[in-house]
Amino acid sequence: MTFTEILRSVQQKQNSLLCVGLDTDPAKVPAVFRNAPDGMVEFNRRIIEVTADLVCAYKLNLAFYECRGEAGWGMLRRTLRHVPAGIVTIGDGKRGDIGNTSAMYAKALREDLGFGACTVNPYMGEDSVTPFLSAPEHGVFILAVTSNPGARDFQYLKVNGKPLYERVITRVKRWDAQKNCGLVVGATRPAELKRVRVLAPEMPFLIPGVGAQGGDLRQAVRHGCTKAGDLAVVNASRSVIYASAGEDFADAARKNALQLRDEMNRYREVYFR
Amino acid sequence: MTFTEILRSVQQKQNSLLCVGLDTDPAKVPAVFRNAPDGMVEFNRRIIEVTADLVCAYKLNLAFYECRGEAGWGMLRRTLRHVPAGIVTIGDGKRGDIGNTSAMYAKALREDLGFGACTVNPYMGEDSVTPFLSAPEHGVFILAVTSNPGARDFQYLKVNGKPLYERVITRVKRWDAQKNCGLVVGATRPAELKRVRVLAPEMPFLIPGVGAQGGDLRQAVRHGCTKAGDLAVVNASRSVIYASAGEDFADAARKNALQLRDEMNRYREVYFR
Repeated sequence: MTFTEILRSVQQKQNSLLCVGLDTDPAKVPAVFRNAPDGMVEFNRRIIEVTADLVCAYKLNLAFYECRGEAGWGMLRRTLRHVPAGIVTIGDGKRGDIGNTSAMYAKALREDLGFGACTVNPYMGEDSVTPFLSAPEHGVFILAVTSNPGARDFQYLKVNGKPLYERVITRVKRWDAQKNCGLVVGATRPAELKRVRVLAPEMPFLIPGVGAQGGDLRQAVRHGCTKAGDLAVVNASRSVIYASAGEDFADAARKNALQLRDEMNRYREVYFR
Repeated sequence: MTFTEILRSVQQKQNSLLCVGLDTDPAKVPAVFRNAPDGMVEFNRRIIEVTADLVCAYKLNLAFYECRGEAGWGMLRRTLRHVPAGIVTIGDGKRGDIGNTSAMYAKALREDLGFGACTVNPYMGEDSVTPFLSAPEHGVFILAVTSNPGARDFQYLKVNGKPLYERVITRVKRWDAQKNCGLVVGATRPAELKRVRVLAPEMPFLIPGVGAQGGDLRQAVRHGCTKAGDLAVVNASRSVIYASAGEDFADAARKNALQLRDEMNRYREVYFR
């Protein structure tokens, strides 16, 4: 199966477009986890336990683990073991380097850690991206239009009258022989999301930026989905995992995740049924 | 001191523009290190021992360590301990993410691992780069024109009649309030190197691509240096550390490093004295 097929089937089975971002920060988790042995992993395990029936994917931003060195790398690995089979795991590292080096990064994410998908930065071009694409069942979300303010510095620059991110998309489509490419498009950019869905009607989109970053959930679903109402992977991190810093953190996380899933499913009913 | 001042002083003291890339691959080191306890670090230690008087910097590409997980992260850390004080260390990870996440990456590189400089990918714009710039003594080499074939896919695209990489440079100059920004410009691109030096006359350049990638050493020095004949950091990885796979690997590495340093210093005499 290609990644696109896998994602479609997981979203159908789970009836969810929601991806929960496990960007776990010791400063923000409930106090009980802060100094507990393996507290970060235990926090993640609890979040996964109460949200696993509500999501199509978990996304782990590598920076939040990498900043703790060897220990953090171990946390990443042990967290992944708690994700039930049949849910997509996304290693969000935005890597990219010359060919032989990108191959090492792909190996780290796919073989060593066992992620089902990853994110890649396109600035260095084809030979920096293609090593990530060698396994059709492994998804590769390439940065197109990001959710942050700095997106405007380069991604929107006009190249032959069209923004740079459109050129990125044209190239990605060319590299997508195995149907395992996806695109990252921020929920904070609904007009661009709409345009990108026209350009890449059948590609998986990873859509960050709802919740703490302020992106509009309705537009993310409306413009992010394919005509079949799927393949948008809408990520929420802080708004779910830090829904409460108290003892009710798990209930609060589940409540917020449930609300996000259901709200998105309502929009799917409105726009795609 | 700013990173630019530090680099200038190290290059003067060491009388060298050479950076050795410790991109250590178990498949390529002499057999004796392959299965030895901490063999990769021991190999790196030996390379550092025989080249430390010949270089201004060591560059460690994180992918080569990251692909070994926790163990690799430990190798990175222990390798850095063997680098004598007064030599620049560059964590080559080409990271870049939204602001709060880039801050985590910066913390990993600067505080946790203790690198003196790093490389950053500019695609996500200002708020993805500036968290790396907060310590003036820490250098940040931002990708401008890379040495790989894929560089042409996006970096050369015309924006208002000028290549995208020129826009990157214009922006980097604006972000460089603390004089700790640098640029990555491939040695495989001498014409662009010349142009970039005109655009950024006093900025440190990290110049990969000589040796295995085929870049021209003479042009790297001629066009990569400032008018004072410095601030070009010319990286060689495979051509030094794998100079021989036999028992003479250390002698061969030193011989190649010495030759590179001396050849570069001859070009400095020719073009800058």
